[in-house]
Amino acid sequence: MDKQEFSVTPWDVKGEVDYDALMREFGVEKISPELLKRLQKHTKELHFMLRRGIFFAHRDLNWLLDQYEKGNKFFLYTGRSPSGPVHLGHVQAWIFTKWLQDVFDVDLWFQFPNEEKFLFGEKSYDEIQKWLYENMLDVIALGFNPKKTHFLIDTRHASLMYPEAIKVAKKITYSMVRSSFGLDESSNIGSIFYTSMQAVPAFLPSVIAGKEIPCLIPHAVDQDPHFRLTRDILPKLGHHKPASIQCVFLPPLAGNNGKMSSSEGAAIYTTDSPKEVEHKIKKYAFSGGRDTLEEHRRHGGNPDVDVSFQYLKYLFEPDDHKLRKIHQEYKSGVMTSGELKQITIDKINAFLKEHQKQRKLAEKKVETFIYSG
Amino acid sequence: MDKQEFSVTPWDVKGEVDYDALMREFGVEKISPELLKRLQKHTKELHFMLRRGIFFAHRDLNWLLDQYEKGNKFFLYTGRSPSGPVHLGHVQAWIFTKWLQDVFDVDLWFQFPNEEKFLFGEKSYDEIQKWLYENMLDVIALGFNPKKTHFLIDTRHASLMYPEAIKVAKKITYSMVRSSFGLDESSNIGSIFYTSMQAVPAFLPSVIAGKEIPCLIPHAVDQDPHFRLTRDILPKLGHHKPASIQCVFLPPLAGNNGKMSSSEGAAIYTTDSPKEVEHKIKKYAFSGGRDTLEEHRRHGGNPDVDVSFQYLKYLFEPDDHKLRKIHQEYKSGVMTSGELKQITIDKINAFLKEHQKQRKLAEKKVETFIYSG
Repeated sequence: MDKQEFSVTPWDVKGEVDYDALMREFGVEKISPELLKRLQKHTKELHFMLRRGIFFAHRDLNWLLDQYEKGNKFFLYTGRSPSGPVHLGHVQAWIFTKWLQDVFDVDLWFQFPNEEKFLFGEKSYDEIQKWLYENMLDVIALGFNPKKTHFLIDTRHASLMYPEAIKVAKKITYSMVRSSFGLDESSNIGSIFYTSMQAVPAFLPSVIAGKEIPCLIPHAVDQDPHFRLTRDILPKLGHHKPASIQCVFLPPLAGNNGKMSSSEGAAIYTTDSPKEVEHKIKKYAFSGGRDTLEEHRRHGGNPDVDVSFQYLKYLFEPDDHKLRKIHQEYKSGVMTSGELKQITIDKINAFLKEHQKQRKLAEKKVETFIYSG
Repeated sequence: MDKQEFSVTPWDVKGEVDYDALMREFGVEKISPELLKRLQKHTKELHFMLRRGIFFAHRDLNWLLDQYEKGNKFFLYTGRSPSGPVHLGHVQAWIFTKWLQDVFDVDLWFQFPNEEKFLFGEKSYDEIQKWLYENMLDVIALGFNPKKTHFLIDTRHASLMYPEAIKVAKKITYSMVRSSFGLDESSNIGSIFYTSMQAVPAFLPSVIAGKEIPCLIPHAVDQDPHFRLTRDILPKLGHHKPASIQCVFLPPLAGNNGKMSSSEGAAIYTTDSPKEVEHKIKKYAFSGGRDTLEEHRRHGGNPDVDVSFQYLKYLFEPDDHKLRKIHQEYKSGVMTSGELKQITIDKINAFLKEHQKQRKLAEKKVETFIYSG
């Protein structure tokens, strides 16, 4: 597949994504330098994911800031559909979400749609519930503000969510979801209904508060079709359209094609041991280096296709100066592929060591994060 | 419309129903004299609605009695979809359901799907919720055993019901509901999902008890398509097929066409005053009498098309001997149409006087009937 042949749906990403083309296809806006400056007025520093264009696109972020500047604080809404272990591709957007929560001091509603992958996949209901618990531990471990973070679990909070979901559902026809999500006549009726439940956290806090609170959804760009439909429907129910801020995909170990995913070859999981991380990076991480050390020293490597370098850029080296130095050294051949991989392995393992410690402590905190309103 | 041109769907009944043809179309069995005898072993007396063929058809009632005789008691499941006031057509099946509860001493799960008519109709969500409350009063007023009767309200009990509904939904495709319920591409996705929620009370008590309890659903025959689908799905989830016992429709005031319904001309509501009942019967109840009193005395009337007589037969004269006497006197011309109507008016008003008293007392009992797990 070349750049002309990529596809992005909420369930699958294939090929090398042309993000400019995708923005046109989805109708989302690029985050402009002016918008970055406007954000910076409030955040003081810009998160490196903003500086580096990892969060690159948005809907209605200017409107959201208008509201914020008028004193109408927003809430954040993001989520995780449990079906397997959490990997670095998931963690990327959540780290950014935590930063938004901290710098704006806002509530975060974190949805766990624990029926989605049951309705759309092959796993049993009980297996999905096991992953629900495991995934909650990962989210808690990232350090979200426990006073301002509210987990919504679709089945557990159905008495709160289903009455709102049917109001959404009444405004959506079968032909609308068919075209948005590629469903057909053989699709099960739960999967057809599902997007209504995903829309609910975008306005539920307003229903609970009894007044309209703006909503900002940080998410990877492949989820945009869900929220595009949500944005069409919510004004018909008297609610604001949610704003969004969208990120590119963390590359899989095999290179800049698709996204890191449990179903597509090896991913790095939050529960991996240092040895497993070392093995995966050394064995699978696509290298931008030359075939021989001699060639590498002479011509240098290509950090822009090197997956280890990408992981530093996307997640593990927040310092632009240090990142630039690695880029230069690798490109000039001063740094070997082995050395670059070792830097990344060490960074990942340092992150995971702390994460796994927090993840263990999270076992005692789960109930306090689940919304009990 | 003649007998050849009738149609029965869960939402609409048109024409004079040929119940033998309908049984063949739906694939339900007639309640045979042998089955009546078998029932009578347990109930001692047979309810007049059984003796008179008002409850006339069933699915798996012999299997249910096999289970019962082995000591495996069943539970009852019926329901009311709130969207307007309760009329005599609704009360008919519930009076029989109460009798079943009393003679078999069993639990009744009474579903109020307070989203159905919102999803399938034009009324607002809030208006439906008002009718939910009003309709609960009517059900309580009929005297169901408060210790053994459990109201399930779809939105209020969604945390209990939605996790089970999605398991049902996963087994039902869009093309299955399209053909069962006449939905199409312009149908909203809530209406497409809805039948999953209606299936849940047929096995929820088994889920709660942690063992399979047989289920018997008393209902008017037009609801069979919902439960036919339920019966197809439940074994795939490891549950028994629910049995059912089905009744004919109470005729509307205008005669033996369709069923009593709020949308089709005048119905007699449980909140009607004695004056309103008198007015409706006198003005609208189709009469089997002759054009003049003289002709009536000479040739007699036709009780089998007379709506006042039908109401006595279906609901208000449990004594077969008395009913036969009225039949004979009317047929021979001894009893006039005015006299027959007056008997029916008096019977309805006596019933409604007590019902309205109980309905007032029910206002204090609502919360005790709602299932609280």
